[in-house]
Amino acid sequence: MNSFNSKLKSIIKDNKSCLCIGLDMNPESIGSDKISNLKEHTFNVIDVTRDLAIAYKPNFAFFERWGAAGFAWLEETVAYIGNDHIKIADAKRGDIGNTAKQYAKSIFEHFNFDAVTLNPYMGKDSIEPFLDSGNKGAFILCRTSNPSAFQFQGQLDDTNSIFRKVALMANDLNIKENVGLVVGATAIEELRAIKKIAPDLSLLIPGVGAQGGNLEDSVKIGNNTSSALINISRGISFAGNMSKKAIRKSAKNYVNQMEKFLNDK
Amino acid sequence: MNSFNSKLKSIIKDNKSCLCIGLDMNPESIGSDKISNLKEHTFNVIDVTRDLAIAYKPNFAFFERWGAAGFAWLEETVAYIGNDHIKIADAKRGDIGNTAKQYAKSIFEHFNFDAVTLNPYMGKDSIEPFLDSGNKGAFILCRTSNPSAFQFQGQLDDTNSIFRKVALMANDLNIKENVGLVVGATAIEELRAIKKIAPDLSLLIPGVGAQGGNLEDSVKIGNNTSSALINISRGISFAGNMSKKAIRKSAKNYVNQMEKFLNDK
Repeated sequence: MNSFNSKLKSIIKDNKSCLCIGLDMNPESIGSDKISNLKEHTFNVIDVTRDLAIAYKPNFAFFERWGAAGFAWLEETVAYIGNDHIKIADAKRGDIGNTAKQYAKSIFEHFNFDAVTLNPYMGKDSIEPFLDSGNKGAFILCRTSNPSAFQFQGQLDDTNSIFRKVALMANDLNIKENVGLVVGATAIEELRAIKKIAPDLSLLIPGVGAQGGNLEDSVKIGNNTSSALINISRGISFAGNMSKKAIRKSAKNYVNQMEKFLNDK
Repeated sequence: MNSFNSKLKSIIKDNKSCLCIGLDMNPESIGSDKISNLKEHTFNVIDVTRDLAIAYKPNFAFFERWGAAGFAWLEETVAYIGNDHIKIADAKRGDIGNTAKQYAKSIFEHFNFDAVTLNPYMGKDSIEPFLDSGNKGAFILCRTSNPSAFQFQGQLDDTNSIFRKVALMANDLNIKENVGLVVGATAIEELRAIKKIAPDLSLLIPGVGAQGGNLEDSVKIGNNTSSALINISRGISFAGNMSKKAIRKSAKNYVNQMEKFLNDK
């Protein structure tokens, strides 16, 4: 069976796209707190982007907000995406080994995701339970895209920064070629540094769009030795007037740029 | 309205107990993967410990494992606990501000928890959305109880360790007296160091019992300037033959020791 990282590489090559669409259905953006409306919008986004996106990434927070009803909607969303795309659980989980096993069962077995995002604060015990199957991927938070990311992850000029240590640990854990890192597009110099430390790991790069990260650098640097998914959430799901046409137009625009940058790299 | 930290202090004083019972319903321990059986055991644990525990702490992983059905069971569990105990969501969430807001709504509004555990890896942006209400508490992971905790949280002899920086940040964020820290009972010297940095913050101390941490030190050091909840999960929920009698006996034994240590401190 192909490893997650090699599968990702060939999908990006075959599709000339590295677009991951984040499904973060903020009720304030949609103007409704009815799950039926949020679900309709989610399915609309998927319908008009199936030939453009290679991955979808629901962020669990937007589903958990509604409790059991939200999780039922998440179950339906995963089924609706189907098996032709990479399904990433943006859950940022991290807990002691005994508990991490339960989260792994939730995400990979119950919800049937192909990959997960993980928080490394508790160290390798909290990551290993997600790495049993080589065809299931784990993207470990390394240098995130938010303003206070540097606070504990560390500064670029600190050669002992935590984000460097996380990249080193991720290398060690990549025995089955199923480990990746999350690096924000808002931290391009850190991205360059991380690629030097961990050139073989897959990347998941959020922060382009609403958060202001640079698309060209993210695509080119991210894909120069390994494979990088570029995640766009709000910039596609809530594009323009949020019509199907506006959503598709925005996604198409991103993919056109990605194809050019992937060729140029 | 009383702040979370002052409320915790008076509850511990009035009850002569600092027992928090972790509701981590591992199907492998119970010998059944039927939610009806897991739910029955959860409710049994609550029934026979209401006069002993001052807090209950369901860990989300054990509910998420079952998807929407698990979250329905979590909703029922919170309702079953009622309003006479502190209800802590052991969720260890951490995400960018926009997303953290959704998790806060999930935990405090939808599920009606009184407090939450949070992961600080992404910095203060990811914590602040949980601090709006002074009567809702946030326990930030500082020095966890698991074997690889030191890997990124740092060693005791490192005066620049991340766990020290997290404690300092938590002090700064404690404007509404609703911030606490998670410090493992397996790291007593780190607990002493953290109490010096953050003497006013509440503590949530896991790691006594199955993980081998020391009860006496945890109770005495934890409660010497501020208030500390001592969490026991497996040591109560799966005590002895797991009968109601065995569960109550174990909880009673912990509370008797706690009362003595609280008096001695």
